[in-house]
Amino acid sequence: MNNFESLNLRSDQINTNPEDLKVYGKDWTTYFDINCSGILFPESTEDVVQIISWARKTKTKLVPSGGRTGLSGAAVATKGEFVVSLEKMNKILELNEVDSTIHVQAGVITETIQNFAQENGFYYPVDFAARGSSHIGGNIATNAGGIKVVKYGMTRNWITSMKVVTGTGDVLELNNSLVKNATGPDLQHLFIGSEGTLGIITEVTLRLTKKPEKTQTVLLAVSNLENVMKIFSEFKKKCDVIAFEMFSELALKKVLDGTGLNRPFSSESEFYVVTELEAAFEQHEQLIHSVFETIFENNYCTDGLIAQSEQQAKTFWRYREDISENLARYSPYKNDISVRISKVPAFIKSLDQVLKANYPDWDVVWFGHIGDGNLHINILRPKDMTKENFVKECQKVDALLFQKIKDFKGSISAEHGVGLTKKPFLNYSRSVAEIEILKSIKKALDPDSILNPGKIFDL
Amino acid sequence: MNNFESLNLRSDQINTNPEDLKVYGKDWTTYFDINCSGILFPESTEDVVQIISWARKTKTKLVPSGGRTGLSGAAVATKGEFVVSLEKMNKILELNEVDSTIHVQAGVITETIQNFAQENGFYYPVDFAARGSSHIGGNIATNAGGIKVVKYGMTRNWITSMKVVTGTGDVLELNNSLVKNATGPDLQHLFIGSEGTLGIITEVTLRLTKKPEKTQTVLLAVSNLENVMKIFSEFKKKCDVIAFEMFSELALKKVLDGTGLNRPFSSESEFYVVTELEAAFEQHEQLIHSVFETIFENNYCTDGLIAQSEQQAKTFWRYREDISENLARYSPYKNDISVRISKVPAFIKSLDQVLKANYPDWDVVWFGHIGDGNLHINILRPKDMTKENFVKECQKVDALLFQKIKDFKGSISAEHGVGLTKKPFLNYSRSVAEIEILKSIKKALDPDSILNPGKIFDL
Repeated sequence: MNNFESLNLRSDQINTNPEDLKVYGKDWTTYFDINCSGILFPESTEDVVQIISWARKTKTKLVPSGGRTGLSGAAVATKGEFVVSLEKMNKILELNEVDSTIHVQAGVITETIQNFAQENGFYYPVDFAARGSSHIGGNIATNAGGIKVVKYGMTRNWITSMKVVTGTGDVLELNNSLVKNATGPDLQHLFIGSEGTLGIITEVTLRLTKKPEKTQTVLLAVSNLENVMKIFSEFKKKCDVIAFEMFSELALKKVLDGTGLNRPFSSESEFYVVTELEAAFEQHEQLIHSVFETIFENNYCTDGLIAQSEQQAKTFWRYREDISENLARYSPYKNDISVRISKVPAFIKSLDQVLKANYPDWDVVWFGHIGDGNLHINILRPKDMTKENFVKECQKVDALLFQKIKDFKGSISAEHGVGLTKKPFLNYSRSVAEIEILKSIKKALDPDSILNPGKIFDL
Repeated sequence: MNNFESLNLRSDQINTNPEDLKVYGKDWTTYFDINCSGILFPESTEDVVQIISWARKTKTKLVPSGGRTGLSGAAVATKGEFVVSLEKMNKILELNEVDSTIHVQAGVITETIQNFAQENGFYYPVDFAARGSSHIGGNIATNAGGIKVVKYGMTRNWITSMKVVTGTGDVLELNNSLVKNATGPDLQHLFIGSEGTLGIITEVTLRLTKKPEKTQTVLLAVSNLENVMKIFSEFKKKCDVIAFEMFSELALKKVLDGTGLNRPFSSESEFYVVTELEAAFEQHEQLIHSVFETIFENNYCTDGLIAQSEQQAKTFWRYREDISENLARYSPYKNDISVRISKVPAFIKSLDQVLKANYPDWDVVWFGHIGDGNLHINILRPKDMTKENFVKECQKVDALLFQKIKDFKGSISAEHGVGLTKKPFLNYSRSVAEIEILKSIKKALDPDSILNPGKIFDL
């Protein structure tokens, strides 16, 4: 079907081995049937231009692919597409110390950038669990967030220039790392979060910052969500909040059961908060202590600890970070959603009521990045229910959940993207007019619809 | 020509008084012939929808207009357009203390937002000379920057949601103040910097922050640009830099002549730096002093002062901020351009050589926001040259200047926008492919070309 003769790549840049197709054809989602025709390994922007030109001529569909750690099926090949893997484009091209920027190819792994920055006295602060595998290009295509968004924002905030090949084969060199550039709309933002549907990002320049010299980690037991928000406000008013995470008693219980860690406080509490705060200077620590006192005096928390060692800080973080791993054996039905920070308590209460009314026996584990309104909802499969029935029931829950999100003007996908999994529900977060605009842009940038067709929306 | 009957506004929302047309038909530029057919004053998003619907029916062209402080002619009516003034949409709608956001109509004046934020214990950090007149909607449409971009970034960084009416009359409610929202490309960024060509922004929610409790201001005499950059690096490594500005001896001389201020140092220097640094804590001050010592020890500066009082800090700032005012009597030919921070010295040197070779007798005043690569170039009119000839000569200089900017991959407009003044030169900063994409987006969002046609580019 595909004529490789007109594709100007070396033979070792083309792979059609069936075993490899299964691997490169999918991301971290597991429930799609993989149908991948081949894998192409560009080594330069010019190679990507070649691939696009060949795909247009041969009507071949392409799936741009990074570290394949996505959770929405955006990098999955299900219709005989060719995967374009950026993994050979993994060079760090330049560190510019005056500009505090790093110029890299799109296939460099997030952790490689973090480490390289740190070795050179800088800091790249976008950080999340998939750091060891995810590519920077993929991070941009999904606008990756993670645990330090409260202080540092999303991947979007760290991009200063981008080289992209569009579906027309045009190479765009966007913004050239200018801080100020008022020459019409900045097209970089079209590609951020576009999940490979508008262009293939080949190079990027990122801004770097300084690493916080010292931080302090605080763990709190809190009896209700209103108080969680009050505590957040108090810390935000006086301190420099790096992360602010929440989890429920049920989440903690699963972690303690699975890890053998000790319960942090003598009694149970409805919710827990772990927060990390800038503490480079003595006065930072004084302010943290004064907020700590305030929240105790006002009974916003029922118990609390300030980590006295790095080891203790790590344990506090494990209560939060080990949740996903320790829920895995319950085959949880996961949703990654967001509402405005101030709406979190009302949203959780309202959805909890709906779930309790419709599914009184189900265990729902709540946790998330409260500091940015991002909640992870995990519904645990009841022991007596088959996986199949459970998924069917959960799809019914989705309808309830997404309607609630629409009522609260939230997002059906906070940081995992749309891809294939959330495509049917896009209209709960984006209006008809918005989707029409997105479609016109898609048609302008990819007139032959060769770039990841069928992801985010159908044309 | 225009049938107001089909326009569903009150008669006092329509103004065709010739004197008013002259005022509302122009911005801070002075060299365009104004031709404005009327001024419309919407009071709500619904009014704007009405206006768009009327304009489509009657083939009327519209110029969206804020505080009219622009310097690129983007808000100028030269072809009989109707100006849509947002000045009646000047309400602060909500302060959300938990989210640290403020929701306002697009016609609220920048300084009003700054003051309201401060009265409520918050801080809106985007700040520039036109703060007392510019509207927040206009700031967004030009992605306004100013003097604190080093620390706080451009207007773009502070927008969390936006209500816009497109050229099709669709009302887009974008992002709903979500911090994390991975549901495809964020369309807010299309309108940021679009200069009213894609839609009329009617409401916006802005993120607020905390005001720095104390800052320190440092003035330095520096003999060359390489050292200016070295000083910038040293401060950035150890301190929290809020502003970092540079000006030349000629700029200082004009300020001293015009204001009667005393020369800050006993001898002249090629360049001067004024920088403002976070100093909330004692350790901040210690770090500032240690950097101050380092740059002296390394001979990066020839003289320097740390302001000992608020009064002295204000004087340091006057040396920089009074430049424009004190150049006015020389009818300077102004350009507002940018290059990457690290390229500033080479760029200035290279352009200076070209100017000296071609115009040996001209006085060129350099100053700007070095911390973000933004330079203001002011060429002073020689006494013996008529204004007319001077402008003609300067247009020749533009050709040289913009070619240099292209060679250095800089921006022909750092923060003033494109509008009419930079439209002929857009291709020096944006590629053919980029401009084609911008045009497709324009056609999709404004199919009848009623929104500010002929600004940024011609279709």
